[in-house]
Amino acid sequence: MSKLNEESCEACNADAPLVSADEQQTLLKDIPQWQVVTLDGEQQLQRTFKLKNFAEAQAFTNKVGDLAESEDHHPAILLEYGKVTVRWWTHKIGGLHRNDFIMAARTDQLSA
Amino acid sequence: MSKLNEESCEACNADAPLVSADEQQTLLKDIPQWQVVTLDGEQQLQRTFKLKNFAEAQAFTNKVGDLAESEDHHPAILLEYGKVTVRWWTHKIGGLHRNDFIMAARTDQLSA
Repeated sequence: MSKLNEESCEACNADAPLVSADEQQTLLKDIPQWQVVTLDGEQQLQRTFKLKNFAEAQAFTNKVGDLAESEDHHPAILLEYGKVTVRWWTHKIGGLHRNDFIMAARTDQLSA
Repeated sequence: MSKLNEESCEACNADAPLVSADEQQTLLKDIPQWQVVTLDGEQQLQRTFKLKNFAEAQAFTNKVGDLAESEDHHPAILLEYGKVTVRWWTHKIGGLHRNDFIMAARTDQLSA
């Protein structure tokens, strides 16, 4: 089991470091179903979760939303029929902080 | 007040008619904050709703989701901090049915 999903987010300010390319590769081994995508010039972690129907996708959206509120770190969540696409990144630093990898790992736990 | 928001969706099959360009212009007068966008080659109605924070955006997402379930017609809903972007279209006919304009008008009511 990954230990990433046992970590909590740390407070993050505009001076916090972006995760380096090398460190990204290491962290992604713990969350192999996530991809690094670039949107609006900022790297983000993205995964699409398949659900049975709209109601289950809505329920999963709420689980992710509740997790986000509990850590005060908020993703973009696209809710559609039978699927939910989650994107984690840290707008304040314009890319990926270690917190985002932690949240991705904890999102995986919600779907397990 | 528009009467569009008082209508219910009708059952829709693959032979159902797309709304014509002229009819779109007429219907859009009832829902002036919605735009017709084209995604993956299909016309969709899109509006972004501003909310105070993530929790309120999540609550609004649930209102729209519950409306969708009640009519068995499902949009794409993008939940982000302080905003929710809703897209209505009818995948079965590859574009916009009158149902989508009805759902857009009813979504406006949820935010009123």
